[in-house]
Amino acid sequence: MTTTTTSHRTRDDRPRLETFHTSGVWQGGLHTRVAARQFALDIDEPPAIGGADEGATPIEYVLASLNGCVTVVIQTVAKELGIRVGGIETKAAGTLDLRGFLGTADVSPHFQELTLSVTLTTTAGEQELSELRAQVDTRCPLLNLIKDAGVEPRVTWHVVSA
Amino acid sequence: MTTTTTSHRTRDDRPRLETFHTSGVWQGGLHTRVAARQFALDIDEPPAIGGADEGATPIEYVLASLNGCVTVVIQTVAKELGIRVGGIETKAAGTLDLRGFLGTADVSPHFQELTLSVTLTTTAGEQELSELRAQVDTRCPLLNLIKDAGVEPRVTWHVVSA
Repeated sequence: MTTTTTSHRTRDDRPRLETFHTSGVWQGGLHTRVAARQFALDIDEPPAIGGADEGATPIEYVLASLNGCVTVVIQTVAKELGIRVGGIETKAAGTLDLRGFLGTADVSPHFQELTLSVTLTTTAGEQELSELRAQVDTRCPLLNLIKDAGVEPRVTWHVVSA
Repeated sequence: MTTTTTSHRTRDDRPRLETFHTSGVWQGGLHTRVAARQFALDIDEPPAIGGADEGATPIEYVLASLNGCVTVVIQTVAKELGIRVGGIETKAAGTLDLRGFLGTADVSPHFQELTLSVTLTTTAGEQELSELRAQVDTRCPLLNLIKDAGVEPRVTWHVVSA
């Protein structure tokens, strides 16, 4: 289903390794300020978990990463395929069993379930959309990280005619 | 190695499921604005990938999430164990083979390698530190998501006496 050998793209036998860096400094409480190149990202927890809500939580950050990643890959693939995109909206939802983080039961601390809903405004036809979806499925780093971790994401696409 | 049954914490047989939500809206180019509760997160790519650098990249977001997550878990476990923490610094580095994202070779689009360096300033002794490290290993959602995806993170701890 995700096998998509598209003839228009060059195959590349040479690894293209690139390393990305972030560094975090604890700000007290549960608040971390992270530097990613010129960007400062504040990560915290709400008071219920013991934080001061100075930023989104680590779980919200990884879900946000999925929103951003899918959008980047849709736009990148759409350009390759000559698909016109008028809008992209994504909704991610991830369910944890908090006992994993709390250490009160022997369960995974990460996602029990994950859903992603993509609303795409486009003039593309069914065949192009099918190719687009397959490419996103194969090429999105975050979606594949989550899949490879054994969390089968439920992805639904809603197509709105532009 | 990660089996740590600590007698001081209550076991809980009832799942504590909680669902977290984010939603993203494409802003043009490769830029997504994500809402996570009251927080707005801008995600983009640098010009080399076709973006306008209006925010950190999805990969930087997931690495930042790891920085924040490890810090939250260290602080949470340290409180449980009565360990005094004077400082936490974390450095994350993830290496991708960009051919996965570019779709030019049949390789994973996510991490080929991932390293995490933790510098902890504390007065804790070796036995407490060993317990702390084991608990972080078991309870950190992001570290376990990455491990379960088959990317064995290389985690190094540096302890500085407070």
